[in-house]
Amino acid sequence: MNTSDIAETAPGWLSAEDLSEVRDRVPLVYVDAVPVRLDHLGRVERVGLLLRAMPDGTISRAVVSGRVLFDETIRDALWRHLTKDLGPEADPSIPASPAPFTVAEYFPDPHRTGFHDPRQHAVGLAYVIPVLGDVAPGDDALDFSWLTVAEAASAQVGEEMTGGQDRLVRLALAFTQSLP
Amino acid sequence: MNTSDIAETAPGWLSAEDLSEVRDRVPLVYVDAVPVRLDHLGRVERVGLLLRAMPDGTISRAVVSGRVLFDETIRDALWRHLTKDLGPEADPSIPASPAPFTVAEYFPDPHRTGFHDPRQHAVGLAYVIPVLGDVAPGDDALDFSWLTVAEAASAQVGEEMTGGQDRLVRLALAFTQSLP
Amino acid sequence: MNTSDIAETAPGWLSAEDLSEVRDRVPLVYVDAVPVRLDHLGRVERVGLLLRAMPDGTISRAVVSGRVLFDETIRDALWRHLTKDLGPEADPSIPASPAPFTVAEYFPDPHRTGFHDPRQHAVGLAYVIPVLGDVAPGDDALDFSWLTVAEAASAQVGEEMTGGQDRLVRLALAFTQSLP
Amino acid sequence: MNTSDIAETAPGWLSAEDLSEVRDRVPLVYVDAVPVRLDHLGRVERVGLLLRAMPDGTISRAVVSGRVLFDETIRDALWRHLTKDLGPEADPSIPASPAPFTVAEYFPDPHRTGFHDPRQHAVGLAYVIPVLGDVAPGDDALDFSWLTVAEAASAQVGEEMTGGQDRLVRLALAFTQSLP
Repeated sequence: MNTSDIAETAPGWLSAEDLSEVRDRVPLVYVDAVPVRLDHLGRVERVGLLLRAMPDGTISRAVVSGRVLFDETIRDALWRHLTKDLGPEADPSIPASPAPFTVAEYFPDPHRTGFHDPRQHAVGLAYVIPVLGDVAPGDDALDFSWLTVAEAASAQVGEEMTGGQDRLVRLALAFTQSLP
Repeated sequence: MNTSDIAETAPGWLSAEDLSEVRDRVPLVYVDAVPVRLDHLGRVERVGLLLRAMPDGTISRAVVSGRVLFDETIRDALWRHLTKDLGPEADPSIPASPAPFTVAEYFPDPHRTGFHDPRQHAVGLAYVIPVLGDVAPGDDALDFSWLTVAEAASAQVGEEMTGGQDRLVRLALAFTQSLP
Repeated sequence: MNTSDIAETAPGWLSAEDLSEVRDRVPLVYVDAVPVRLDHLGRVERVGLLLRAMPDGTISRAVVSGRVLFDETIRDALWRHLTKDLGPEADPSIPASPAPFTVAEYFPDPHRTGFHDPRQHAVGLAYVIPVLGDVAPGDDALDFSWLTVAEAASAQVGEEMTGGQDRLVRLALAFTQSLP
Repeated sequence: MNTSDIAETAPGWLSAEDLSEVRDRVPLVYVDAVPVRLDHLGRVERVGLLLRAMPDGTISRAVVSGRVLFDETIRDALWRHLTKDLGPEADPSIPASPAPFTVAEYFPDPHRTGFHDPRQHAVGLAYVIPVLGDVAPGDDALDFSWLTVAEAASAQVGEEMTGGQDRLVRLALAFTQSLP
C-alpha cells in the first residue's frame, strides 16, 4: 500500500479509515507485476526487484504490487503502479491477454496459502511484464535492481523477500521456463 | 448476488447495508464458472446455463457466478457457488491451475468493457468447469439447461443473457477451441 | 511453406523430395503468429495480415506461419518467420512464456478440426505477437495490412482467409478479449 | 518411444528404418502428460510417475510421454498414451483447452534447453492430467507410484529422472501453484 493510496482524493481512492473498514469485509483486488528484461527471442535475461519498506515493517525486495481501485481497469492499475514504481521512462509492456499467469491469494494468516499480507485478504492477479525502457524507482522504493535469473531464484534473494513474493518470482520463472 | 449473501451471518458475509457501502468503494472479487460436459477426449459437448433472475431485473440465462468472501479462497468460492447452483451431486472439476482463462471486469457503466453489473464494479475470474455428475439447480435458479455448443454460441441464446455473459461464453468456447 | 524452405541447404532444411517423404509420415511442427499493434495498456488496436499465395493456390490473407526446422527452437522459428515475413525493422515481441495460446491442428482432411492444409498434417503452435516497428512484407507476400479488430473479425475478411486461419484470428481476439 | 511405435503397421506408424530417417530431418511432435490426483478443490495431492527403461538406457522415473502420429489429433495421442501407460481403468481427464501449460523442447544436445532426448529433436506439448481411476501400468513400465508433491519436487526423485523431466515436473507444480 502506498502513501498515495491514503492521501489522494480522486474517485476510487479511500481515506485510511474507509480502507481499514473495507479491509475487514472483502478481499481486495491487487495486481502483482514481475518486471523482466527479455532478449530478442523472448527469453528472460533479468528480473527486476524493488527494495522497499513492506507492510510487515521489514525492508524487503519486492515485485511491483498494488491495489486495483474502484472504477479502475486491471490494465490501468498495472500501468499506474508500474509507472509509479519504475518511473515514467520504464516503458512496461502490458500483456495482450488479461489472464494472469497465476493468482496469489494473500491472507492475514501466513500459513493459509503461502502468500501473506498482515493487513488484509488480497487477491493478486500476477503478470510477467517486459520492461523496455530505463527504470528510475519511485519515491516509495529505496532501490531497484535487475537480477540475473539465477540470483532471482536463489535462496539468498528469496530470504530478502516477504509475504511469499519469493515464491511468486519462482512461479514467474517457471511460467517463462527460466526456472533453473 | 444471492439472497444468502445478504442473510447469512457467518464470517465473511456482510449485511445488506455493509455490502452496499463496500460496493461504492472497491472492486469486488467474483468467480465466473462456465459449466461444460466434456467427452472422453476433453472436447466440449455441452455448455450449462442457468435461468435466473438477474441483478438488472430480467429473467436471463447465466453462468455460475458469485462473490469471493473475506477469508475465502478462490477454490472454496468456486466449490461453494457450483454446488449451490448446480446441486450437491454435480461433481464439478475445479481446475488444477488457479489461473483463470480470462478476467471479466464488470462495471456499472455498460460501455466500459462490455461486461456490466449495475450494482457494482466486480472483477470476475473466469473458469471453464467440467461437470461430471447430475445437475439439480438450486433455489436461486429457475432452471438449468445443457445446450449444444452451437446453441450456446448462437445469437438467440446470446440475447437471453445479460451483463456481457454471452460474450464470456464465447470466450470460453474460444479457449476450448469449440467456438464455431 | 516458403520457397526458401526448399531451396536452402543449411542444416535443418530439406530438399523438396525429402520434405515430401516426411510429410506423409509424421505431423510437422509449425508456428502461427498473429501480429498485433497494442496501445500502451496492452489492448489490441490492429491485427496484421499478409496477402499471399497459399498452398491451396488461392490468394489469401494470412497470419505469419511457418515450419520449425530440425535443431531449431520455437523462439528461433518465430523470429525467423516474423522477420522474414514482416521485414527486418518489424521488431516483433516474442512472448516470455513458450506456451502457445492455442494449438491449431491442420489436417489434409478439411473437416477434421476446421484447420486445413492440403499438403500435410501440421501442428501449429499459435502466438499473439505484438509488433513494435515498421512492417515491410517479405518477397513471399504480396501485401500486408493492419486491420482494425472489427475488420479482422468480420465475415468479409474471414472469407479472404483459408485453412481455418479466420478462426485462428478469432481465437486470438478472444484470448486478448478483443473479440467483438 | 515404445516398441509398439516400431512394430505396428497401422496408418501413422513407421517402420524403425523410416522413423530413423525422419528423425534426422524434422522435429517430432510429442505429448508429455503429468498425471495428478486432485482433491475436490482441484489442489494437487499426488503426482504420478512411471518407472521405465528410458531411451538413454537408464531405468528412470518418467511422466507419460509419447509421439503424436501422422493423422492423429493431440487429444487422441494423449488418450492413447495415457490409457496404454496407466491402464484401461485410469480414467484420465483430458483438458478442455488444447493449449499446453508449457512446451518442452528436447534436443540431442543436452545443453541446449535443459530438455534432452539422445534420439531426436522432439517438441513436447505438456499437460497436467487429473487421473480419476485406478492405475495399472502398461507393459512398457516397470512400476508406477503416486508421490506426494514434496517427494515429486525433491532433489532425490529429481535425480531418478532423465532428459529434464524432473524440471518438467517442477514446471507442472508451479503451474498448479503446488511447487513448495
